[in-house]
Amino acid sequence: MAMAFAQEQIAPFANDWDRDKFFPVETMRAAADLGMAAIYVRENSGGAGLSRLDAALIFEALATGCPAIAAYLSIHNMCAWMIDAFGSDAQREIWMPRLAKMQFLTSYCLTEPGCGSDAAALRTRAKKRGDAYLLTGEKQFISGAGAGGDEHLYLVMARTGAEGPSGISAFLVEGGSPGIRLGANERKMGWNAQPTRAVILDECQVPASCMLGPEGRGFAMAMAALDGGRLNIGACSIGGADGALNHALAYMKERKAFGRRLDEFQALQFRIADMATELEAARALLWRAASALDAGAPDAGRLCAMAKRVATDIGFEVADQALQLHGGYGYLCDYGLEKIVRDLRVHRILEGTNEIMRLIVARSLLESETK
Amino acid sequence: MAMAFAQEQIAPFANDWDRDKFFPVETMRAAADLGMAAIYVRENSGGAGLSRLDAALIFEALATGCPAIAAYLSIHNMCAWMIDAFGSDAQREIWMPRLAKMQFLTSYCLTEPGCGSDAAALRTRAKKRGDAYLLTGEKQFISGAGAGGDEHLYLVMARTGAEGPSGISAFLVEGGSPGIRLGANERKMGWNAQPTRAVILDECQVPASCMLGPEGRGFAMAMAALDGGRLNIGACSIGGADGALNHALAYMKERKAFGRRLDEFQALQFRIADMATELEAARALLWRAASALDAGAPDAGRLCAMAKRVATDIGFEVADQALQLHGGYGYLCDYGLEKIVRDLRVHRILEGTNEIMRLIVARSLLESETK
Amino acid sequence: MAMAFAQEQIAPFANDWDRDKFFPVETMRAAADLGMAAIYVRENSGGAGLSRLDAALIFEALATGCPAIAAYLSIHNMCAWMIDAFGSDAQREIWMPRLAKMQFLTSYCLTEPGCGSDAAALRTRAKKRGDAYLLTGEKQFISGAGAGGDEHLYLVMARTGAEGPSGISAFLVEGGSPGIRLGANERKMGWNAQPTRAVILDECQVPASCMLGPEGRGFAMAMAALDGGRLNIGACSIGGADGALNHALAYMKERKAFGRRLDEFQALQFRIADMATELEAARALLWRAASALDAGAPDAGRLCAMAKRVATDIGFEVADQALQLHGGYGYLCDYGLEKIVRDLRVHRILEGTNEIMRLIVARSLLESETK
Amino acid sequence: MAMAFAQEQIAPFANDWDRDKFFPVETMRAAADLGMAAIYVRENSGGAGLSRLDAALIFEALATGCPAIAAYLSIHNMCAWMIDAFGSDAQREIWMPRLAKMQFLTSYCLTEPGCGSDAAALRTRAKKRGDAYLLTGEKQFISGAGAGGDEHLYLVMARTGAEGPSGISAFLVEGGSPGIRLGANERKMGWNAQPTRAVILDECQVPASCMLGPEGRGFAMAMAALDGGRLNIGACSIGGADGALNHALAYMKERKAFGRRLDEFQALQFRIADMATELEAARALLWRAASALDAGAPDAGRLCAMAKRVATDIGFEVADQALQLHGGYGYLCDYGLEKIVRDLRVHRILEGTNEIMRLIVARSLLESETK
Repeated sequence: MAMAFAQEQIAPFANDWDRDKFFPVETMRAAADLGMAAIYVRENSGGAGLSRLDAALIFEALATGCPAIAAYLSIHNMCAWMIDAFGSDAQREIWMPRLAKMQFLTSYCLTEPGCGSDAAALRTRAKKRGDAYLLTGEKQFISGAGAGGDEHLYLVMARTGAEGPSGISAFLVEGGSPGIRLGANERKMGWNAQPTRAVILDECQVPASCMLGPEGRGFAMAMAALDGGRLNIGACSIGGADGALNHALAYMKERKAFGRRLDEFQALQFRIADMATELEAARALLWRAASALDAGAPDAGRLCAMAKRVATDIGFEVADQALQLHGGYGYLCDYGLEKIVRDLRVHRILEGTNEIMRLIVARSLLESETK
Repeated sequence: MAMAFAQEQIAPFANDWDRDKFFPVETMRAAADLGMAAIYVRENSGGAGLSRLDAALIFEALATGCPAIAAYLSIHNMCAWMIDAFGSDAQREIWMPRLAKMQFLTSYCLTEPGCGSDAAALRTRAKKRGDAYLLTGEKQFISGAGAGGDEHLYLVMARTGAEGPSGISAFLVEGGSPGIRLGANERKMGWNAQPTRAVILDECQVPASCMLGPEGRGFAMAMAALDGGRLNIGACSIGGADGALNHALAYMKERKAFGRRLDEFQALQFRIADMATELEAARALLWRAASALDAGAPDAGRLCAMAKRVATDIGFEVADQALQLHGGYGYLCDYGLEKIVRDLRVHRILEGTNEIMRLIVARSLLESETK
Repeated sequence: MAMAFAQEQIAPFANDWDRDKFFPVETMRAAADLGMAAIYVRENSGGAGLSRLDAALIFEALATGCPAIAAYLSIHNMCAWMIDAFGSDAQREIWMPRLAKMQFLTSYCLTEPGCGSDAAALRTRAKKRGDAYLLTGEKQFISGAGAGGDEHLYLVMARTGAEGPSGISAFLVEGGSPGIRLGANERKMGWNAQPTRAVILDECQVPASCMLGPEGRGFAMAMAALDGGRLNIGACSIGGADGALNHALAYMKERKAFGRRLDEFQALQFRIADMATELEAARALLWRAASALDAGAPDAGRLCAMAKRVATDIGFEVADQALQLHGGYGYLCDYGLEKIVRDLRVHRILEGTNEIMRLIVARSLLESETK
Repeated sequence: MAMAFAQEQIAPFANDWDRDKFFPVETMRAAADLGMAAIYVRENSGGAGLSRLDAALIFEALATGCPAIAAYLSIHNMCAWMIDAFGSDAQREIWMPRLAKMQFLTSYCLTEPGCGSDAAALRTRAKKRGDAYLLTGEKQFISGAGAGGDEHLYLVMARTGAEGPSGISAFLVEGGSPGIRLGANERKMGWNAQPTRAVILDECQVPASCMLGPEGRGFAMAMAALDGGRLNIGACSIGGADGALNHALAYMKERKAFGRRLDEFQALQFRIADMATELEAARALLWRAASALDAGAPDAGRLCAMAKRVATDIGFEVADQALQLHGGYGYLCDYGLEKIVRDLRVHRILEGTNEIMRLIVARSLLESETK
């Protein structure tokens, strides 16, 4: 279903969306109608109640159409899951229907100009003022920001206490809140089908009831969400790369050089064998990590970090090779290959850079007594 | 169980066996007593009746003790499976008890001096003479050859018909058969704990009843066995590499340089993160391929070829890096690291070189209409 | 001089040119005034009379400002050299002053829709008609095409004889010739600061005197020019990558994470060490190839192919890593890193894909008796 | 000359020397007679007075015969150079004739069990006692140790002062000195044609006149020697790899599979093209570094570290691929390929591990203001 949706509703338009920097909200709402906006949210919360492994399959399929759109959906799912997992009954009641149908779009607001994965450096503050919080700070690289106008929900991590991770809480901030302002849509290498903006909070006032989960748990919840987020983004890389590989296979079957079809050249056969093999290894690891997360396995976090690193690195590499196999045509926008390369490039950076993934894996290896 | 066996019965002696070129038949018979000589042979044939995935786990565990011994066991299992899968009731009755307990050792005899994976080039001939066959030819790189003396069973692929794969049949040849002769034990880079010899057949006479499976099906059966064989050898690479990685982790926790423990150097942390991550990806792919083979999935052959390629390449690379992390000590035989590197080197070559794996994968990709 | 020019006249504007798809002809003419449009054209032909090694240094320096502009200049130099090396006195007299000052821009027109490096597939035909030739065919991926209007010189390879390379001749075709038509400016991943168009020739009439060099030598001359062209494009990759590396070093010295400057993280130190080391190896090989071409060494062609392959692959890889070291900022257009990655991407494809480079190298290795 | 010597005097015996762990002192003395024991020692000191670039060419040539022997000669040259460069006239007079003819063999004694490249950790102490020094400590991984018996010169770095590099002095210690003792010949992965032993000093007494250079300069001199030493060992890797590549080319021209010669398979053609290309890049960088060292360029140290890293990594990789191209034969000792792989493996570790090379390069990059 996700594959059919991707091929019919997304793929034919993906190049145009990229060129025009058009964020296809209606298309995403159609996906939401099929359950793809709250995939691993519980059914009694209004979600599809599927597993992380299901989600990985769905995001891979969607990304064969457009990695940028699949990735935005994956972020939206991550936010929806956070509210389902950590929200109060009241919060779930308010938000889950709106998010499951994408009446509201969401944005995950953790990163700041001086702070990527470093909790200690997080500067956005939330001060209690009566029955409200005043949030002040700047969030950066916020996917989708502004797209929903007032019907947009920002999931903002802000400091309510002392330094360090345990001083951070999470807040649900609506797009129409007073004191919220958006930066310009950033010009980027790719992911042009979704806007990326700074979200600037200047004494932005939200009711105290908008805190998500317990005070001081914001960073922990944000990190918990990222385990799944990393799987999702990895799945988007695999889907994008798989699309590129299939384009390359089709091209090789028809294009000729030196009197032979490209698929008859053994060196190129070896190339696609390596591409397919490495992609399959990445996919297998991702599925394994997803199953571990589904099962609540103790090494799930490490496996998710591993899978994100491998899937996004190999996904990019495969797409880059698929471009190469197209020769000069691969470099032209009309053929769609270079777009996949540009889109997948950022997956190696976001939801924790691949350098952070290595830190997480190394720390886990060195801490475990018996590995 | 396999892990305990590997750590207690194999690992402490592995370096000595390598140095002394000693083939530890008694140790392997102890493993056989635990069911590890006929792992995926059916229970009613006298095997353990386990799955390919189980076998992958067992060979990985055994290889943490010694890849060369684990690999020989994997070859023996492959031969046992061929007889179980394709043999007559009589053949099964005769051989399965002997093989399951390793009273007889086995050798898989496909390769010839001018022929690795190329069936057309196979020159060993079997001529029907009354109720017997006379086999003449030379088989090369035969693992374990000669080790069982007369109590050794050679599974020989020989040409009974025309050129091409369909002219090849399989024969069960006992070590004491007239006309069988062994070459010298080859001096090799590694795998020193198991002998490798040529097996020379000079009008070697076997009863006609020693043909395994139908006439002309020898190559097809040999290839079918190799799907599992590739998984097994891949698992041995993963086990060897995992052992090396654990040695490296332990070493990094105690060795100091420039006043700090090695495990405090971030560049080395990233290194082990990459080693562990890539090994995990290879393992995940191998498990996936094993499950596919268990399920009889149509893409099982492709997945097995992919898994063999990745597991043996990455296994070697990880072992090589583990050696590097030991500095000069890694180069000394006493530390065991260099032995693992030498042992794993041949896994990239045998049971179909990794170049042949790429051919198999490419062919499969290009033949499938929809990938 | 080239470095100062690059830093002052090119670098500050490169991002804008990319965004606006602006081809800075006046800037290039200023470079031409400094001798950079005919670097290795003989002095008595009006060139700078420098060596290929000098040219490599100049293109590297220019590319630190903008690889796309440096690359266009390198193509212009290649065309100028062809006319100097193979042209008649009359052709040199007419063209060298115009090209040395870039009064006329040039385009190298070899590639066709169905033909990259495959001479046999070249379909553009030149038919003799009285004292003129009528050229008909389509040239593709033509850098700079159309930018000079009538004051543009197309160096067109067209078939005057039988199939194969020896049936191809070269022609000097002015922009205002009857029967020449330009395709749309292609939308590309990068190289946006220079236009790329198809050049369509429909019975395009040129005087017979516009043939360059002897009839039937067009392909040979085009290939001879490419030896130098490959060095130049390789140098552009090295310059672009060197610029990216320096950006990354500067960024690492100021950006902080987890309370430390990035340049204090050992894993990132190792990363830049590897980047710098591999770039230096590519540069050393390129210089060696340039010296070999200057000296007319018999292995110059092989060394040029090797150098092009390595310089463009490593140049891209280094730029890609420099982007990664910038984290999310590397993905934003404003920081200039992603532009370098996009620009360098095509260097692996043009002037013979890196796959063609491997063919050239392999053929040379296998033909030589003693290597 | 060096190439002829390598092919005639070394190559035919190299496999036997490896198998028998035989150190061919007479062969090396024959090389010494040709000037190869003091290549870049000044002529008026009795050396050949050649450049570092000459030396690189010579060691590359020698290593095509046997990397282990070439490497020992390179260490001997390094020691000879230290005495020429830093010794007193008297020391030069005594030692240069003996070393230039290899009447005395030499060993470079820096490394200790707890100390590779970390000067601060060096524990061997030299205490002044009247007109003598008493040296106590253990030196490890000492190449050639013991081979010359009493006619062996150990160049020992020992602490005469405070902690840190400036507390270390260098001493010339003869093999027959009282208090010197040798450890067992280490069993190693390769380099079997030269012995490696610990050198244990137990109040080993040497005349005070045996100090080389000024007190407290030992570490600085040892490091200065290593710049050249790194070039030499890099050259040995390139030579070994070049030999392996040539073996592979020859094998591919004769071996057949699937009815074609191996050199007709395009995927293998690409493989050797990549091997040759990367080897050529390493060679070009090495030559550039040697020229820089000859010229006393300020970045010579960085270039030497870069060249050592690249040459030894790529040399190993090329040899490993050459083994692979030989299939099963590559794994057999008789074919010589696996020996090259084993020999080259240690080059990535000694004379500063390749990790230390990265530290040196990174430090140099980060310290330079303008790079």
